[in-house]
Amino acid sequence: MAKQKKQPRPKAETPKGFRDYFGAEVTQRSEMLQTIAGVYHRYGFDALESAAVETVEALGKFLPDVERPNAGVFAWQEDEGEKPGAWMALRYDLTAPLARVFAQHRNDLPTPYRRYAMGPVWRNEKPGPGRYRQFYQCDADTVGAASVAADAEICAMLSDVLEKVGIARGDYIVRVNNRKVLNGVLETMGLVDEGMRNAVLRTIDKFDKVGENGVRELLTKGRLDASGAYIDGVGLGVDQAAPVIAFLTSKAGDAAGTLANLRAAVGGSAVGLEGVQELEIISELLSAQGYGPDRIEIDPSVVRGLGYYTGPVFEAELTFEILDEKGRKRQFGSVAGGGRYDDLVKRFTGQAVPATGVSIGVDRLLAALREKGRLQGVEHGPVVITVMDRDRMADYQTMVAELRNAGIRAEVYLGNPKNFGNQLKYADKRNSPVAVIEGGDEKEKGVIQIKDLILGAKIAENATLEEWKERPSQFEVPRDQLVAKLREILAGQG
Amino acid sequence: MAKQKKQPRPKAETPKGFRDYFGAEVTQRSEMLQTIAGVYHRYGFDALESAAVETVEALGKFLPDVERPNAGVFAWQEDEGEKPGAWMALRYDLTAPLARVFAQHRNDLPTPYRRYAMGPVWRNEKPGPGRYRQFYQCDADTVGAASVAADAEICAMLSDVLEKVGIARGDYIVRVNNRKVLNGVLETMGLVDEGMRNAVLRTIDKFDKVGENGVRELLTKGRLDASGAYIDGVGLGVDQAAPVIAFLTSKAGDAAGTLANLRAAVGGSAVGLEGVQELEIISELLSAQGYGPDRIEIDPSVVRGLGYYTGPVFEAELTFEILDEKGRKRQFGSVAGGGRYDDLVKRFTGQAVPATGVSIGVDRLLAALREKGRLQGVEHGPVVITVMDRDRMADYQTMVAELRNAGIRAEVYLGNPKNFGNQLKYADKRNSPVAVIEGGDEKEKGVIQIKDLILGAKIAENATLEEWKERPSQFEVPRDQLVAKLREILAGQG
Repeated sequence: MAKQKKQPRPKAETPKGFRDYFGAEVTQRSEMLQTIAGVYHRYGFDALESAAVETVEALGKFLPDVERPNAGVFAWQEDEGEKPGAWMALRYDLTAPLARVFAQHRNDLPTPYRRYAMGPVWRNEKPGPGRYRQFYQCDADTVGAASVAADAEICAMLSDVLEKVGIARGDYIVRVNNRKVLNGVLETMGLVDEGMRNAVLRTIDKFDKVGENGVRELLTKGRLDASGAYIDGVGLGVDQAAPVIAFLTSKAGDAAGTLANLRAAVGGSAVGLEGVQELEIISELLSAQGYGPDRIEIDPSVVRGLGYYTGPVFEAELTFEILDEKGRKRQFGSVAGGGRYDDLVKRFTGQAVPATGVSIGVDRLLAALREKGRLQGVEHGPVVITVMDRDRMADYQTMVAELRNAGIRAEVYLGNPKNFGNQLKYADKRNSPVAVIEGGDEKEKGVIQIKDLILGAKIAENATLEEWKERPSQFEVPRDQLVAKLREILAGQG
Repeated sequence: MAKQKKQPRPKAETPKGFRDYFGAEVTQRSEMLQTIAGVYHRYGFDALESAAVETVEALGKFLPDVERPNAGVFAWQEDEGEKPGAWMALRYDLTAPLARVFAQHRNDLPTPYRRYAMGPVWRNEKPGPGRYRQFYQCDADTVGAASVAADAEICAMLSDVLEKVGIARGDYIVRVNNRKVLNGVLETMGLVDEGMRNAVLRTIDKFDKVGENGVRELLTKGRLDASGAYIDGVGLGVDQAAPVIAFLTSKAGDAAGTLANLRAAVGGSAVGLEGVQELEIISELLSAQGYGPDRIEIDPSVVRGLGYYTGPVFEAELTFEILDEKGRKRQFGSVAGGGRYDDLVKRFTGQAVPATGVSIGVDRLLAALREKGRLQGVEHGPVVITVMDRDRMADYQTMVAELRNAGIRAEVYLGNPKNFGNQLKYADKRNSPVAVIEGGDEKEKGVIQIKDLILGAKIAENATLEEWKERPSQFEVPRDQLVAKLREILAGQG
């Protein structure tokens, strides 16, 4: 008889670029999402949860190349038997699904439609260190409101969210700019060539790194960078580059000053002046609600990469310093961003619908709070009821039921109870605050041993049962004081 | 010049079998998940969140047919340039990822590893009415515990969860059985042929529908069904079928009686007797913790479809009646199930690891609570500050900031304020409890109008501003009493 060929064992691995989250990582994210949802909700936004899967068309992927429809997204073809089926893909953000939802349900939804959404999104990109292909976003958007009051509100809400999750005032700044101002500057410069305009935008984005002189050089003749390489310039004249420099350096001591500088920078451009006026209104509305420049400020250097923004853009930056992987101090950086996009719904319906919103990078925000020591990496485990006598499992289960009914997190050790040391090692690995012991002697005397593990954890690892019982952090109490004594110890541990 | 070809507009639709969830649907599910997580956590289970995406191998799909690797799952091939990449797929449950996670991290995880997980899973199946391709599961499993105390605990926890989310005692029952008992019955019958065994198992599954006599007929000569069609029998003799009948009818008035009947049904089968003994231990442990047969009972008719169960199996059934789509009364049915599976981790490591767990169908549980009227379909919307004078937006924003700071959900109307009726229709559509009005007259007098919308909603839809202002549910109060008066009205509305 032929030997049956065995299936090879599958590898126990996540796919490349994906990871597992354990314990506190999960619960802290979940708590943060709830906190943010609470603020969004208080501002009048309603929850929306769309599926992870959308048609490729709805996501804006038009299959220019059927061989590779999944550039940037995870996509597959519906299996419909004979004929080739529709292409589907995992959402890469929460904005594209919102545009589809609003277009699909617009007759039933209130207008403006204010919704928040939270959940994972997926990117089919090369993974790298700390760069995953699935991550969380937490968005709020107002669809159908042309007024920049909607943009101002999003900025105020973003500020509230950051303080609510534990970023202190002074440790963050929400920076606001307006694409229209930037467009006005380009108009003033007489730049019509798309290539030139994009070259200028890319250069503006480098302002943070190379400063005023660097940008001036890059816009004109070019520049020797720090590594000694020569970077070609965009080729503008010094005069032609002046409005860009004026724009980038227009931030003044207060909003009025910045706005005056911006007004000068856009010259006679109508769209530019409209942009400055919108920023002025935003600034006034925020002042009226008490959001001063310590929380939200106009900052012309905010560009935001996405091409679809059409008006105000904003970004929340954490301003405290952390050490980077090379031990250098740097600012933590951006944790949220957004802006006005008036054309996303139009793709579906042909009618432009004004919209504005923000997306919070929840995983980065969690990382920031961990950096600041505001989140503990490990939470306490459950109280562990050890099993001294496997025939008295019912006794131990009765104890654990008492504790749980009293709201105390607890479990009976459910592994093989033969080796008592393993039970203590287990409690240690779970970071348990307390272990409870009831052997035959205790049972007879009507008592239990309660061991405070927080202090004794390290030592306990190698202790014998006898040594263990003698430690001062161990208490013998009557069986009927189980709950009371545990409450006392847990309260003492904080 | 050639006319540029326009992209056709994408359809604003979800892919087939997917849907959007709005407002209360989202928040009620989220609250239920949090409630369940709270119970799981109190029992000592730790959170785990794995990615939605797994390798196809890890999910247990071994690509028997490369043309169609995605039978049952949504799968695609990693794009790695030249060479064909790995196959990835969306998880179809939370148990397969748990087996992978435990195998991957087993050296770092405590044993037993007790984890809970919640989130969407995806099935590539033909969608139908009320049958979606993405739905939520909420699982808890104990990996590495051979003791049936772990199974008993899962049943107790399941009972606690159901009561905690709002299913009253008496409206549900957790039913427990054991695969080993069933195997013992088949052993007693001398059934070795796999086809015959499966035919018997399928017949047992019909007990609920056809009853004792029906099963006896189906196991032997066959049976005329209600539609008049003749169903072939399995072909057993009446004597040979007797143990199956004894097994299925072994449920007695109490656990002791049922266990005695089961012991008789398995005859001399060792595995059967082991199964009965396990049920006995489970029953004792649950009694000790106060879980009587009004909550958890031994019921031999529980089979559970999945082939991977190896010991105790359990199912939570809601016992109250609802009307089905044809207006007939029927029991709501199963909302959760699980059991012991000892071989899932072995696939990866070669070593058997005992495991047991439960999966709660959160969406079905939500549907049940809605049926019972325990969940409202629509929640109240925000207080709406109407815009009477668009130049005084800052005034309205100041009001809304006061309300939000007082913890009251509120928003300024952000659509085009020109048509006041539209603002009221909007408030109506949002199910807003209150609208606030401050026109020029009010501003001058230092007052505001506050309109209770809960009573007046229907009428308001066609009212003019003048009519609107005269309704008795409208109050004029000094501007500085905005928060106080709103608190009063909202409290009155409940």
